[in-house]
Amino acid sequence: MMKTLKLDLGERSYPMYIDNGLLLDRVLLARHIRGERVAIISNETVAPLYMESVSSALSEFDPLTIILADGEQYKNLQTMDRIYDALLKEKCDRTITLIALGGGVIGDMTGFAAATYMRGVDFIQIPTTLLAQVDSSVGGKTGVNHVRGKNMIGAFYQPRCVIIDTNTLNTLADKELSAGLAEIIKYGLIRDVEFLDWLKDNMSLLLSRENAALIEVVYRSCRHKAEVVAQDEREGGIRALLNLGHTFGHAIETGMGYGAWLHGEAVAVGMAMAAELSHRKGWISEEDVLFVDEILRQAKLPTRAPVALSTERMRELMSVDKKVSAGQLRLVLMRALGEAILTDDFSESELSATLEACRE
Amino acid sequence: MMKTLKLDLGERSYPMYIDNGLLLDRVLLARHIRGERVAIISNETVAPLYMESVSSALSEFDPLTIILADGEQYKNLQTMDRIYDALLKEKCDRTITLIALGGGVIGDMTGFAAATYMRGVDFIQIPTTLLAQVDSSVGGKTGVNHVRGKNMIGAFYQPRCVIIDTNTLNTLADKELSAGLAEIIKYGLIRDVEFLDWLKDNMSLLLSRENAALIEVVYRSCRHKAEVVAQDEREGGIRALLNLGHTFGHAIETGMGYGAWLHGEAVAVGMAMAAELSHRKGWISEEDVLFVDEILRQAKLPTRAPVALSTERMRELMSVDKKVSAGQLRLVLMRALGEAILTDDFSESELSATLEACRE
Repeated sequence: MMKTLKLDLGERSYPMYIDNGLLLDRVLLARHIRGERVAIISNETVAPLYMESVSSALSEFDPLTIILADGEQYKNLQTMDRIYDALLKEKCDRTITLIALGGGVIGDMTGFAAATYMRGVDFIQIPTTLLAQVDSSVGGKTGVNHVRGKNMIGAFYQPRCVIIDTNTLNTLADKELSAGLAEIIKYGLIRDVEFLDWLKDNMSLLLSRENAALIEVVYRSCRHKAEVVAQDEREGGIRALLNLGHTFGHAIETGMGYGAWLHGEAVAVGMAMAAELSHRKGWISEEDVLFVDEILRQAKLPTRAPVALSTERMRELMSVDKKVSAGQLRLVLMRALGEAILTDDFSESELSATLEACRE
Repeated sequence: MMKTLKLDLGERSYPMYIDNGLLLDRVLLARHIRGERVAIISNETVAPLYMESVSSALSEFDPLTIILADGEQYKNLQTMDRIYDALLKEKCDRTITLIALGGGVIGDMTGFAAATYMRGVDFIQIPTTLLAQVDSSVGGKTGVNHVRGKNMIGAFYQPRCVIIDTNTLNTLADKELSAGLAEIIKYGLIRDVEFLDWLKDNMSLLLSRENAALIEVVYRSCRHKAEVVAQDEREGGIRALLNLGHTFGHAIETGMGYGAWLHGEAVAVGMAMAAELSHRKGWISEEDVLFVDEILRQAKLPTRAPVALSTERMRELMSVDKKVSAGQLRLVLMRALGEAILTDDFSESELSATLEACRE
């Protein structure tokens, strides 16, 4: 039974559909295409699995297919130029609809291409990884990395709809499934302590990819994301709380080189760090810190930074984060389990001690 | 006496200020800066003339200066990367205000950098060419060229304000002054036949850079632009009329290689072509065509395409224009002098005959 959600953003509102088998749903896909042509953008890993299905479901729209190299290291302006070039070569005009078929990297780049091709065209998200399904495909953050920092170039640009086919999770590597669970656990830590209990109870079903459990967890996660984004589309306030663990995590990703660590893995360590610092501030208990550590481990996620990354280097990398405001580093921490805050109420020594405590 | 206009776009509304000497107005500049730091982006031609003035007027905002090579041929993603790199190297955060100090190319790239740096930061337009003052700095079109077409990558993104110092026109090359007059004549041809008469009467004052005449012509032109953009920010309808002469003009610019022809020069030829085709359709008289030709020549603008560019090549280049909708080329033509329409009501042979008639 298909689950449907709406992200409420006035004239930029759009639906999200969650079910198994949606990739093949010609009618659902066609309903959200306004022009006469689509371009499906995917990568070398996902295209062999799903491009043919999506392409034939969209055969009436003369699909152009653009297949990029797979990996975070290709999420840059050079790859954007390849997309623009392919679209221009085929004389695609402003009525084109771009379709993102893949994980977060494909979604972010396709969305940014849609935001910037001829100053803006339609796009549809078809996320095929758990992380993209519960996080990056919803909310309109698009963009690419710069050698000096992750996601530094981009735009807020909303899709026409998000189509989530949970069947695609059957071909996902175990590591990628776990990376998605990191963002799911994040929603619990930020705003829904009861969801954390549900996750603990259902973790083994999720890891064995039981379909009803997957649909339920994607639905509950997207609902959290949609509620937050509807209140604060451009991250002037509450949306920043979704970055729990991300300032730490981005530093790990950049420090280790894009692609060495999965985003979700780095965020998992970042959440463990946020818990540790929240405890040092006296806001959450030692039991809470252990609970966070345990649920992350249950999801087969790391909770400690690599020994290769020094505390000093971590600190330096954190200083270029977008959450730095007028030179002051702010972090998302926890006032309590299930209640996040954005704060600069911590000392350099508390931060350093946290980074040190959370290394392997 | 400073003239002020408002571009009415709801929460994205902003003021335009027009007077001589505004570059030095510390209070006016500071009033539109929300953060604590600015980055002034200019080029190698404009920076030696005005960077020191603007930089010292903004000294309290610790100005970072970014100086780019001058020319349309540098309006591309590679130059964008230089801007991003300079901002990231200096750890500029989301509170930065970017300031465009230069002509249309600087304004378009600075605006696109503001639209895409950390998913959007503030920017201010300080246009220093007549063309930028009356056209490109107003209305939020930003972006860069692609080797396959002009302005193919970009975004709609509005500045916080536009500050127009007509004194900067004193250092402008004659060719550049004429190029600006092309866009000014365009407003008359599209929507204000009386303005055309005023221009004819005042052309020699304008060419001799009489200050009161310049302030008046910039004010009247910006008012036209602001009225049109307020009705149709994202060019779904009426705004497209501002592209009179542009589809022809872009083809000339691309065909001759970016930078060989000034944008305004190419648009002048494009408007002569639009007049010719409108006459072939029976919508305007031969006298009207001669009037258009005459006022363009009065402004020292070309009215014929270069002999180096074949009619076939022109036609091919026109087919990748953004105004092509679902494969059908549409052009802005004139129903009457002072009344433009967007139409596909012309045959291939009428178009070819027009292109042929308007070659040197």
